[in-house]
Amino acid sequence: MLADDSPGINISSLTAGQFDTVYNLFSLVIASMLFTAIYLLLSQRRVAARYRNAVVVSAIVCGIAAYHYFRIFANFQESYPAGTTIAAVHPLSNIVFNEAYRYVDWLLTVPLLLIETVAVMALGREVQRSLLRKLVPASALMILLGYPGEIAASTGTRAIWGAISTIPFIFILYILFVELSKSLDRQPPEVRTSIKRLRIALLALWGVYPIAFLFPVIGGDFFGGANGFVLRQAGYSIADILAKAAYGLVIYKIARTKSRLEDPQYDEDLDEGPGNRPDPGRTLKESTPAPV
Amino acid sequence: MLADDSPGINISSLTAGQFDTVYNLFSLVIASMLFTAIYLLLSQRRVAARYRNAVVVSAIVCGIAAYHYFRIFANFQESYPAGTTIAAVHPLSNIVFNEAYRYVDWLLTVPLLLIETVAVMALGREVQRSLLRKLVPASALMILLGYPGEIAASTGTRAIWGAISTIPFIFILYILFVELSKSLDRQPPEVRTSIKRLRIALLALWGVYPIAFLFPVIGGDFFGGANGFVLRQAGYSIADILAKAAYGLVIYKIARTKSRLEDPQYDEDLDEGPGNRPDPGRTLKESTPAPV
Repeated sequence: MLADDSPGINISSLTAGQFDTVYNLFSLVIASMLFTAIYLLLSQRRVAARYRNAVVVSAIVCGIAAYHYFRIFANFQESYPAGTTIAAVHPLSNIVFNEAYRYVDWLLTVPLLLIETVAVMALGREVQRSLLRKLVPASALMILLGYPGEIAASTGTRAIWGAISTIPFIFILYILFVELSKSLDRQPPEVRTSIKRLRIALLALWGVYPIAFLFPVIGGDFFGGANGFVLRQAGYSIADILAKAAYGLVIYKIARTKSRLEDPQYDEDLDEGPGNRPDPGRTLKESTPAPV
Repeated sequence: MLADDSPGINISSLTAGQFDTVYNLFSLVIASMLFTAIYLLLSQRRVAARYRNAVVVSAIVCGIAAYHYFRIFANFQESYPAGTTIAAVHPLSNIVFNEAYRYVDWLLTVPLLLIETVAVMALGREVQRSLLRKLVPASALMILLGYPGEIAASTGTRAIWGAISTIPFIFILYILFVELSKSLDRQPPEVRTSIKRLRIALLALWGVYPIAFLFPVIGGDFFGGANGFVLRQAGYSIADILAKAAYGLVIYKIARTKSRLEDPQYDEDLDEGPGNRPDPGRTLKESTPAPV
């Protein structure tokens, strides 16, 4: 019973369906992270030099996540090996399912996500430095304070650490929504828009983690026990895909758009191209009689 | 019996011949996908900047498929281990043969295949955006609706989900064959031709999947049971090679041809002679200074 009630202690067994769901989600995350990382690395030359660091950091974030999900995937198979038949429950083995992989991943990737976000804003060097001096330590602290709650045997302890780690999260929001706003007026309009969109996206995406974190505290048949475990893994996995891979692609898209607006050489539609190129025929007619 | 009749439940055993056929096909797919991906990545600089994204996305599609076939290959070996002798049947182990890998793969690659197709057409930015806003969600929905049918224990359920997932497929065809046609007139002839060829290829290649999907519904000794399993895996595997690797190479070929026609710097084969290609650059120089 204890094993089922306490999120910090591994669930004693998963049904074949529960196992398959988590197993397939983990594989989906690996594929999403790995190939988003590769795509972003291959596409960095398509953005102006000043935005390349934002795109490369986005790729690194996805690469770090891919590494950790390879570990999580293998660890999950070891912790919940198949039963006697394909339909049998997967009992917990002697190998713990190691939630720490996620926190090590977040400890590295969450500060990097803030760095890529500030980098793509292309603020002045001074503004950028002072922002990151506050955001990076706060985000690392937020993750470190969440971990004791994740592995806590009692839901009470989980809730307490969850609450404590919310303090740096609120500080991060304060920096992004209050302090950053002061420097917004000095930004060109399209930059202002993208900054506003980005921080809203961060708030929405990062909001999924505390919700998944709290499933075991909500408890009950649905949010507690094995179901709660599956839901929490699903919540973390989908949140990771959105907050890292999808978010990285948005960072890339913003960098592409800004590059195009600021430097025509990045606007490939302005190149001579089907449907877009200046029609040489017409140019000829305007200048000289068309040669027959 | 149940195991043999129900595609959703794993086949209880495969003959040595059946196992080897599937095993070798999976390895063929891995080799095709992995090295098509590498070839396309290495060749992206041989196409004009505006077509590189189409080539890179084609490479990513093959890479994602390669990842999933590595998983499928290993999973297949675990699910049907060798019998007591090399001639003995391969009995189903306690590890389920996970059809979900295919659906996770398709969930990622099918929208990307539509993106690479639209990207190589080099339509205006607006046309492209409005097309993808419809095509990408529809294609993801098509895959998601097919999965419940794939894992269904009864062929009836399989047929129903198959029918439902056909609706977004028809919508995709409508967009490609009706909506897209409206913007065709505004395209130069060579683009019009390649668009028409591409969508015919998509229709033909994607048509293989529903056929393989329906083998168990057709049933009988040939399309049902272990034979049906082998046929379905063969159908999916060959369709994947054609719709991803071969299709990606066609995308690359189109991008190469267009690059050569539009920009002489990509025409390395100078023996063709300048007469064989339009040279708007020179015509302009002779008549008027090139407009900036």
